[in-house]
Amino acid sequence: MITQYLDAREFLTACGTRVDAELDRRIEQTGASDRLQATMRYSVLGGGKRVRPALCLAAARAVGGGDEPALAAACAVELIHAYSLVHDDLPAMDDDELRRGRPTTHIAFDEATAILAGDALQALAFELLANDHERSPEIRIALIQELARAAGHRGMVGGQAIDLESVGKTLTLAQLETMHRHKTGALIEASVRMGALAAGANGTAALTALTNYARTLGLAFQVQDDLLDVEGDTDVIGKPQGSDAARAKPTYPALLGLAGAKEHLATLRQATLASLDSFGPEADPLRAMADFVVARSH
Amino acid sequence: MITQYLDAREFLTACGTRVDAELDRRIEQTGASDRLQATMRYSVLGGGKRVRPALCLAAARAVGGGDEPALAAACAVELIHAYSLVHDDLPAMDDDELRRGRPTTHIAFDEATAILAGDALQALAFELLANDHERSPEIRIALIQELARAAGHRGMVGGQAIDLESVGKTLTLAQLETMHRHKTGALIEASVRMGALAAGANGTAALTALTNYARTLGLAFQVQDDLLDVEGDTDVIGKPQGSDAARAKPTYPALLGLAGAKEHLATLRQATLASLDSFGPEADPLRAMADFVVARSH
Repeated sequence: MITQYLDAREFLTACGTRVDAELDRRIEQTGASDRLQATMRYSVLGGGKRVRPALCLAAARAVGGGDEPALAAACAVELIHAYSLVHDDLPAMDDDELRRGRPTTHIAFDEATAILAGDALQALAFELLANDHERSPEIRIALIQELARAAGHRGMVGGQAIDLESVGKTLTLAQLETMHRHKTGALIEASVRMGALAAGANGTAALTALTNYARTLGLAFQVQDDLLDVEGDTDVIGKPQGSDAARAKPTYPALLGLAGAKEHLATLRQATLASLDSFGPEADPLRAMADFVVARSH
Repeated sequence: MITQYLDAREFLTACGTRVDAELDRRIEQTGASDRLQATMRYSVLGGGKRVRPALCLAAARAVGGGDEPALAAACAVELIHAYSLVHDDLPAMDDDELRRGRPTTHIAFDEATAILAGDALQALAFELLANDHERSPEIRIALIQELARAAGHRGMVGGQAIDLESVGKTLTLAQLETMHRHKTGALIEASVRMGALAAGANGTAALTALTNYARTLGLAFQVQDDLLDVEGDTDVIGKPQGSDAARAKPTYPALLGLAGAKEHLATLRQATLASLDSFGPEADPLRAMADFVVARSH
């Protein structure tokens, strides 16, 4: 699949197809419970932009690799993302009945099985990385270290905890960014870094540049998310417009005003692209992804 | 700590002290949220027999290793076990307010943070294994493969799913054993295998023998658990006596009768000890653990 993509949607679609086929195969392996298996499949397949896997594959290309080395990593980050959504939607958490235009997992199945499916998907992510035989043990370890840190209490789950504690509170911009850096930024950063690591870029200047790219991209992603919640179309974004405000969640528009948030987004976009200055056309998919993140409608 | 233990309680206590100190250190590392950190600590420290870590360390000794090589693995299996209890106790699952004589995590803190704490503990288990620098990348990968498989949809979580689907149903002995093999047996087996793997026993006859030991031990563990639920003292077992029967859960006493279940336990104990026939005194801790499992009062 070594073709130049300048169109982010084309790239996302192609990555999504590739990764979905791989995920389909992986969750097909016989489990102990058919119902759990079905719940896991429902949670992972059937929707989603596949932004994280696309970033992973794009990062592998940026350092001169093909898609193949980063495929397991791409699947793993999507599994972590998928599991986090299942748990996030639970009644005790965000209590959402709709996501991506479909019933959430605990609504489609039941709450207990949804909790277990999330748990199983996390384990599966690490299993995939450990079993990626075409990668050296050293690279597999580096990928697992990266993902475990990004997924855990110092990354995604830590950020979700901060988010829980912040509802109804007034946060400073710095506090808001800290929450997002953990809650969504860590996994986005890991997605990019893991793609590069899988393609052999450990310890390189390229990896450092890509890490910077991912950091500002992660923040941009969330600013746009907040803007969509205020301005987006319920049918397109797949969840009720205004749901953040209804829950009194601290957001960029609430903090900076709508115009201020849009300005902030533009600044972040510039910084994101600037991180790729040392890369040639091999980083075009990453450039396209940056533009997609800020311009998307869902 | 290369001392001969013939007393299981002494061995368990010593292992528990060692592993708790290590776990304490590991969860002390700064996380994103103090409350989440506190919830994780509550879930892991402050109670528990530490059976799985003890089995892990005992297995390392059985193949001629010391405790040191297996310490990270011992912590990892306890983290997985601890996280599974947090999620198991949730309102949507077993809905327990008491465990080990203390309020369950979601009661002591809140349900959302309990869900997240369980998630973070699972990620931390894999992080510990990946970062165990004294072990070669090959051994670390083998440990992660082992734990991911045992923890996921083909192991522990799969077994929990079967258990959910079985409430109120009449199971055959074979079906009951399948459920337990996954729900509790897989992690017990992994605990033993990981101890041996950490000490370098991959591909050996010893590993095969220890795997057999762990399989029958795992089943014995559950038969005794069921017997305690019928006969045990609430104060000692730490949860209300008769809670299984109240929930119409399929159990060994329900299926075989009390006497039949005790007979089954005795048979399993014999088989467990027979698996260690090729081992000398280095396997005495494992022999002691086998006796502990069947004779314990909680």
